[in-house]
Amino acid sequence: MTDSGAGVRRLLSRRSFATGAVAAAVVPAALGTAAAATSDKPAAADKGGDVRNLTLYMEKLPNGEMGYGLRPGEATIPGPLIELTEGDTMNIEVVNNLDVAASLHVHGLDYDVASDGTKMNDSVVQPGERRTYVWRTHAPGKRHDGTWEAGSAGYWHYHDHNVGTEHGTGGIKKGLYGPVVVRRKGDVLPDKQFTVVFNDMTINNRTAPNTPMFKAVRGERVEFIVITHGDFFHTFHVHGHRWVDNRTGILEGPQDVSRVIDTKTTGPADSFGFQVIAGERVGAGHWMYHCHVQSHSDMGMSGVFMVTEADGSVPGGMHDMHDMHNMPGM
Amino acid sequence: MTDSGAGVRRLLSRRSFATGAVAAAVVPAALGTAAAATSDKPAAADKGGDVRNLTLYMEKLPNGEMGYGLRPGEATIPGPLIELTEGDTMNIEVVNNLDVAASLHVHGLDYDVASDGTKMNDSVVQPGERRTYVWRTHAPGKRHDGTWEAGSAGYWHYHDHNVGTEHGTGGIKKGLYGPVVVRRKGDVLPDKQFTVVFNDMTINNRTAPNTPMFKAVRGERVEFIVITHGDFFHTFHVHGHRWVDNRTGILEGPQDVSRVIDTKTTGPADSFGFQVIAGERVGAGHWMYHCHVQSHSDMGMSGVFMVTEADGSVPGGMHDMHDMHNMPGM
Amino acid sequence: MTDSGAGVRRLLSRRSFATGAVAAAVVPAALGTAAAATSDKPAAADKGGDVRNLTLYMEKLPNGEMGYGLRPGEATIPGPLIELTEGDTMNIEVVNNLDVAASLHVHGLDYDVASDGTKMNDSVVQPGERRTYVWRTHAPGKRHDGTWEAGSAGYWHYHDHNVGTEHGTGGIKKGLYGPVVVRRKGDVLPDKQFTVVFNDMTINNRTAPNTPMFKAVRGERVEFIVITHGDFFHTFHVHGHRWVDNRTGILEGPQDVSRVIDTKTTGPADSFGFQVIAGERVGAGHWMYHCHVQSHSDMGMSGVFMVTEADGSVPGGMHDMHDMHNMPGM
Ligand SMILES: [Cu+2]
Ligand SMILES: [Cu+2]
Ligand SMILES: [Cu+2]
Repeated sequence: MTDSGAGVRRLLSRRSFATGAVAAAVVPAALGTAAAATSDKPAAADKGGDVRNLTLYMEKLPNGEMGYGLRPGEATIPGPLIELTEGDTMNIEVVNNLDVAASLHVHGLDYDVASDGTKMNDSVVQPGERRTYVWRTHAPGKRHDGTWEAGSAGYWHYHDHNVGTEHGTGGIKKGLYGPVVVRRKGDVLPDKQFTVVFNDMTINNRTAPNTPMFKAVRGERVEFIVITHGDFFHTFHVHGHRWVDNRTGILEGPQDVSRVIDTKTTGPADSFGFQVIAGERVGAGHWMYHCHVQSHSDMGMSGVFMVTEADGSVPGGMHDMHDMHNMPGM
Repeated sequence: MTDSGAGVRRLLSRRSFATGAVAAAVVPAALGTAAAATSDKPAAADKGGDVRNLTLYMEKLPNGEMGYGLRPGEATIPGPLIELTEGDTMNIEVVNNLDVAASLHVHGLDYDVASDGTKMNDSVVQPGERRTYVWRTHAPGKRHDGTWEAGSAGYWHYHDHNVGTEHGTGGIKKGLYGPVVVRRKGDVLPDKQFTVVFNDMTINNRTAPNTPMFKAVRGERVEFIVITHGDFFHTFHVHGHRWVDNRTGILEGPQDVSRVIDTKTTGPADSFGFQVIAGERVGAGHWMYHCHVQSHSDMGMSGVFMVTEADGSVPGGMHDMHDMHNMPGM
Repeated sequence: MTDSGAGVRRLLSRRSFATGAVAAAVVPAALGTAAAATSDKPAAADKGGDVRNLTLYMEKLPNGEMGYGLRPGEATIPGPLIELTEGDTMNIEVVNNLDVAASLHVHGLDYDVASDGTKMNDSVVQPGERRTYVWRTHAPGKRHDGTWEAGSAGYWHYHDHNVGTEHGTGGIKKGLYGPVVVRRKGDVLPDKQFTVVFNDMTINNRTAPNTPMFKAVRGERVEFIVITHGDFFHTFHVHGHRWVDNRTGILEGPQDVSRVIDTKTTGPADSFGFQVIAGERVGAGHWMYHCHVQSHSDMGMSGVFMVTEADGSVPGGMHDMHDMHNMPGM
């Protein structure tokens, strides 16, 4: 299990993220100053319509891994969380510091073929070169023909589509992926955000005991962003917390008939997200999150969501964590 | 195919269940006397808020299997169906009559770390010992911050989280699992309930022709509770009947835009449920239920939902059932 | 990649389909004359309640494949698209021109055991013989007991349930499957329809570069019908377009809280569908559709959705398509 410092570095939580000058272009302006954790009223996504600019560096990491980063030498796996509000446009200049051609392909957003990130559409970046990808988003609305167009809001993601194969199989395996969240104006904003990427048999390219430990204070509004990549299917499960299987992961009101779940089947390139109140009705504690495919969790697709009291204490301790993955299967 | 007697024993249908003194603590009080099958108006879940007590025995079964039971020597696979109405609390004293440390971990409900059922949270039961797990439930409601909290209602399940590995891989494989249903006040109650657990390549740890035959009379309101465990993904399918992919599995009204399905992809620890009117618009008959992964159904993940007329007759007979699983694959 | 002519032949798009005398019985009457692509107001499904008759031929195809067709010698993989409006009844006379007993089993619709298509229910067709299967459909409505019954509308499918094994494993593998769409009165009708069947590691029993190329003009309302068969799980993804995970795949209005997705996990016998406006907000271009399981797309589960301008032009060209599947995996 990595400590929280490493977790924050790897995950680029919004709090730390919003303090950087570069990051300010990435997250909605309102987020930098929101203090939802200490308020009865959660912050809400802004009005959208901004045009933002961002530079993303594709870089080599130790052990042959690769990552996206906001500054040279600071690539992470997953890459930085990119947040927009419906209506926003993002111009992303991608700098390829790798020694292979690579790209940026996004899910769910609006982009021309020139920003598709595929070899087929001639939109990859050669080593040592740079290319600007343009992502647009839109709010839902009524078409001229009277039908409704869905908005861009959702839990999405970006990844390479060129390294290894024309589907980016090699780039994804090595770590070239990251989360994207598009909010609808008025959507509730979280206090903390954690990204879980089931990439083949890993979580964020790590296995237990090196998977992230996510830390929150009881009562904080925590957002999980869950993405899958690679060749396998998984079931994401977290102990002591549940969510709603709709667009936001939050019950929209008494009329919302969506399923409430604590386990979700997910396959490569699926993504979803949800918000929970840390420890709500269950208290502080060490709450496991893991893939519930038994052999996957036994092989290390498991981590801890640590919910502390305001004073940092946690009831019950945490027993036998070091032995956790040394048990033989049956 | 087992006969209905065995099916009832294994499945602990609510009718037989509600006649036992111990079982009375498990199902909502209203259910014991409801006669929805013969009434135009289905029974509804009660108001919730009760505190119930239950003892569950973890026991060895023949051939190395293990199960949960309501009385010593009466463990079943799956374990007993536990039903609550939102607001109820259940205190479950678990007696470990196995010779390995084992536990009780529940999905979807509210519990402290002391009732997590994991070694990490020091909440397993040693052989020969007993431990009380507390499950709480709650109705949906508005938080102080104006957002909505989802309720506990849903099709959930419990399982061991300690035998074999710290994720309970060995206990689950051997049969330590069972269904939980939490109702919302006013939810429609079924006449009969059947539990299907896709556990690795089995249904309720059995393969055809030994899978349960579920029997109902045409017009009865039948509830299916479908749970998956183990290492594989499956698609649950039943012939001649469909359901709605929402919280209850029942269309909530004309405004409900949920998908109507007769096949659902499901992975380890997923659970869902739905109600059908037996034979509605299709008549009595032998209706297959099976995993629709072709090799899985061919290897025995298949059974029969037998819908009879009121006089017990079934049109069409049932042909070649004994040959059903002796066909070579192509 | 096959050319559009082959794609149309294989897919039986509604336009070509509706011009045949036989096909007139299959699609709702209104569709044959609708010109939604050139109108601001999309066509709507008719009132339902018709009784239609159809003959389906089960035939051998080259290389040991098998298919359903509307005329002798014209079987296709997938078989012909069959469309109904809720309330319609379809009598389908199936002629078995194969040399093995085979059948017709449908998902989602109403049928007696005599139309189940299983050996268990004695409803298969011997070689050289014919048998009439009756499919019924119904609109949603309120039952006498006050609960709601879901309607038949949905994206469904039919397949053999007898060749090779009693679950039709051999017939499905060889191509005995096809799409069914049931509309609700008033549902929006598409201009074009494309069927994608993930059958084991193929798309419509083909792999790249022989997978269908789907062609549409920017602004056309295109319907995708996605079905899975065989032994594997997949994630369907299309570039540049997204849909809503509800009954119609179309946002029903501002109150619709369903997830908006561009990737969906799907397993054997699952089916779903959706409509997109070709190139909406992203423009004309060559847009990949593929299974997003990395090894599956690398092995050929990939094709192109080609969106042209009204004059037939496509921006950006299409680069390296011939190399697309010759890249080594990593
Ligand atoms: Cu997994
Ligand atoms: Cu299966
Ligand atoms: Cu696939």
